[in-house]
Amino acid sequence: MVPHLITALTGPINELEQRVLDSMPAIERWFRLEWMEHTPPFYASVDVRNAGFKLSPVDTNLYPNGWANLTPEMLPLAVQAAMAAIEKICPEARNLLVVPENAPYSNGYLDNLAQLQRIFNMAGLNVRLGSIDPAIKKATTFELNSGQRITLEPVVRTKRRLGLKDFDPCTILLNNDLSAGVPGILEEVYEQYQLPPLHAGWATRRKSMHFKCYEEVAKRLGKLLGVDPWLINPLFEKCEAVLFGDADSLDRLSAQVDLVLTRVRRKYKEYGIKEKPFVVVKADHGTHELGFVTVRDARDLQALRDRMTQLAQDSASARLPHDFLVQEGVLTQERVNDAVAEPVVYTMDRYVVGGFYRVHAERAVDENLNAPGSAFVPLAFEHSTQLPQPGVKPGASAPNRFYMYGVVARLAMLAASYELEATDPEAEVYD
Amino acid sequence: MVPHLITALTGPINELEQRVLDSMPAIERWFRLEWMEHTPPFYASVDVRNAGFKLSPVDTNLYPNGWANLTPEMLPLAVQAAMAAIEKICPEARNLLVVPENAPYSNGYLDNLAQLQRIFNMAGLNVRLGSIDPAIKKATTFELNSGQRITLEPVVRTKRRLGLKDFDPCTILLNNDLSAGVPGILEEVYEQYQLPPLHAGWATRRKSMHFKCYEEVAKRLGKLLGVDPWLINPLFEKCEAVLFGDADSLDRLSAQVDLVLTRVRRKYKEYGIKEKPFVVVKADHGTHELGFVTVRDARDLQALRDRMTQLAQDSASARLPHDFLVQEGVLTQERVNDAVAEPVVYTMDRYVVGGFYRVHAERAVDENLNAPGSAFVPLAFEHSTQLPQPGVKPGASAPNRFYMYGVVARLAMLAASYELEATDPEAEVYD
Repeated sequence: MVPHLITALTGPINELEQRVLDSMPAIERWFRLEWMEHTPPFYASVDVRNAGFKLSPVDTNLYPNGWANLTPEMLPLAVQAAMAAIEKICPEARNLLVVPENAPYSNGYLDNLAQLQRIFNMAGLNVRLGSIDPAIKKATTFELNSGQRITLEPVVRTKRRLGLKDFDPCTILLNNDLSAGVPGILEEVYEQYQLPPLHAGWATRRKSMHFKCYEEVAKRLGKLLGVDPWLINPLFEKCEAVLFGDADSLDRLSAQVDLVLTRVRRKYKEYGIKEKPFVVVKADHGTHELGFVTVRDARDLQALRDRMTQLAQDSASARLPHDFLVQEGVLTQERVNDAVAEPVVYTMDRYVVGGFYRVHAERAVDENLNAPGSAFVPLAFEHSTQLPQPGVKPGASAPNRFYMYGVVARLAMLAASYELEATDPEAEVYD
Repeated sequence: MVPHLITALTGPINELEQRVLDSMPAIERWFRLEWMEHTPPFYASVDVRNAGFKLSPVDTNLYPNGWANLTPEMLPLAVQAAMAAIEKICPEARNLLVVPENAPYSNGYLDNLAQLQRIFNMAGLNVRLGSIDPAIKKATTFELNSGQRITLEPVVRTKRRLGLKDFDPCTILLNNDLSAGVPGILEEVYEQYQLPPLHAGWATRRKSMHFKCYEEVAKRLGKLLGVDPWLINPLFEKCEAVLFGDADSLDRLSAQVDLVLTRVRRKYKEYGIKEKPFVVVKADHGTHELGFVTVRDARDLQALRDRMTQLAQDSASARLPHDFLVQEGVLTQERVNDAVAEPVVYTMDRYVVGGFYRVHAERAVDENLNAPGSAFVPLAFEHSTQLPQPGVKPGASAPNRFYMYGVVARLAMLAASYELEATDPEAEVYD
């Protein structure tokens, strides 16, 4: 099943594709120089949206799961990147402890853990899964659909180290986004490498901070390419301390929605784009029961206000002030077998190691696809997906398209690197 | 066309395969630690022979050509490894000059240059081909069978730099094995990175030195695996200053042949191997008109002596003293469609990036396959060739077999690293 890219073959995205291809050595060199100054996130997955006229990341996950959706052809790249990453961080490494999400354990998530275990084992580490889930009181084995088995074991904490009963790792890899806050058991682990650092978790991270950093690097890449950075950058505003039942809060949120919509409308006019602008309202950190709300017009806005007022009556959490991100919505023009799709790009160390399409048959082009009912289709182009083909007509080459996705994904990864530097609680400040 | 591995499924090689797989994290860690102390050759190709009971490198090429025989699936690995290599050597690199072999230019060699240009271009460099061939007096364009074109341009030498008329590279990549000696135009280039260093050329390199270093690392890996290093190491002796018409020289060579044959015979007896032992006599540096001569018994030895005596009468070069390597012959039990085959493994930086089978329908299992009439079959196993599959029965998994080949190839690469350190004319000596 090879995804069919239906992106229109004319217009700005192809101009962008051409610029990206023409500038390939300069882009690669620019990243190379950036990585001399900044540490790439250990691993990441980036949701990318291709609107046909613009291309943007819409979500950057620093604790990526879904590794099992990478095709076998892509695995050697992930292993090689893992080798490069280990070599830099801790070349003498022998044992790696992966700390997964807590229950519930979906089949997909367990497959993801098995794949991570496989990748780092191939890269030359003994890998075991150390759970911080209070429900995992002893070694617990799960059978996967493939027949393979994986075992979660309860972590054992000593004063300065984290491990298992008979396993002392030098590096701890978190595959848990810490949405529920940083548990004490992971804090003050001073003698081991903890990857990614704890402040990459949603207890600290803010989407607005990420996209502020992204805006900065997108401007610089835009300058290098000689293109309007808006073509790769989603506009946004944030709205802080929103109280759901509070009229003033809702007015402030409405004003931000209007502001972003107005700016998007202006850009659409500038480029002669006939689509209807929209924004997406989402929690500034992690997830919120409100979900991702698409707002196109006054009617959607009224529906959002009504829903928030209702939630304030029903839910305790809605009565706490909460920060929201109001982000320019980026349509997806990608389709796989008629279902709406968006590419998800996986990185490890500084490398793009693979990707797949997230596909949702029941969602519209302006809706969030990361929702129950979504499926995954490997980015299984016939040959060498990762490598561009210079000289091929813009829009006509899947590898070229994917190269461009990889550039935008790495740009988001670079933004995450800036973000983590800015929020590092242990950063040294030089005056 | 998927190569069919006919290697016997029982016996020592499968025990070796099992040990290699069981020790995978330890092997990877060992290499990681070695690469902390030693610099990997920039790129290499290693001819590997699988005799069914032993597995050895028989030739390590530090200026590999044949890159065009890698499949498109393998290219992303090569590009990623090239990115890692550039990042370490010269992250600010912008321009790369590739210095190819001189004429004659076979189609295969031109394809190889196009592929190298492609790999380093994808890795983010402007790549041009700078020829030191006196016949290339101006930019000369060749059309490849694929329709693609490549251009060789004459190098321009200034006092301290090498480049093209309008192209100033920071790094020079040699794809020329300097068999004819180091041309002055490549010497004393102090301001640019020259890869590999000039002393990796056959003007300096000696096969005996390489296999001495290989023996050392094979012993250490053998210890780590708990196996007899002979299972991965070909025995050898060298014979210096051989004069072809000189009876004393021929006696010395005969004695070395006997010595190696005796030692191999002893090993075959120890392992109950029923094959007929043989040795291969080859020039200790580069190539010699004598070629690679297989010697199994007294009759072969007499034929060799007769041929050398004849050459002494016919050829001026045979009247100069010459060093030879007398190496244990390693049978190949690999077949691709009934033709004798040997795997060739490609590395870049510290990574195995691909490989293929060299196939020769008219040669025997104990003959050199790197000869006119050979063909190339990609190592095109169905999935993820580079990654081992733990838990699969020894001998039954092509990826596992290839992982083992990759380990032996990297061992040869490590030996080349030791060799280049030992022969570095600019090495600092600490007493």
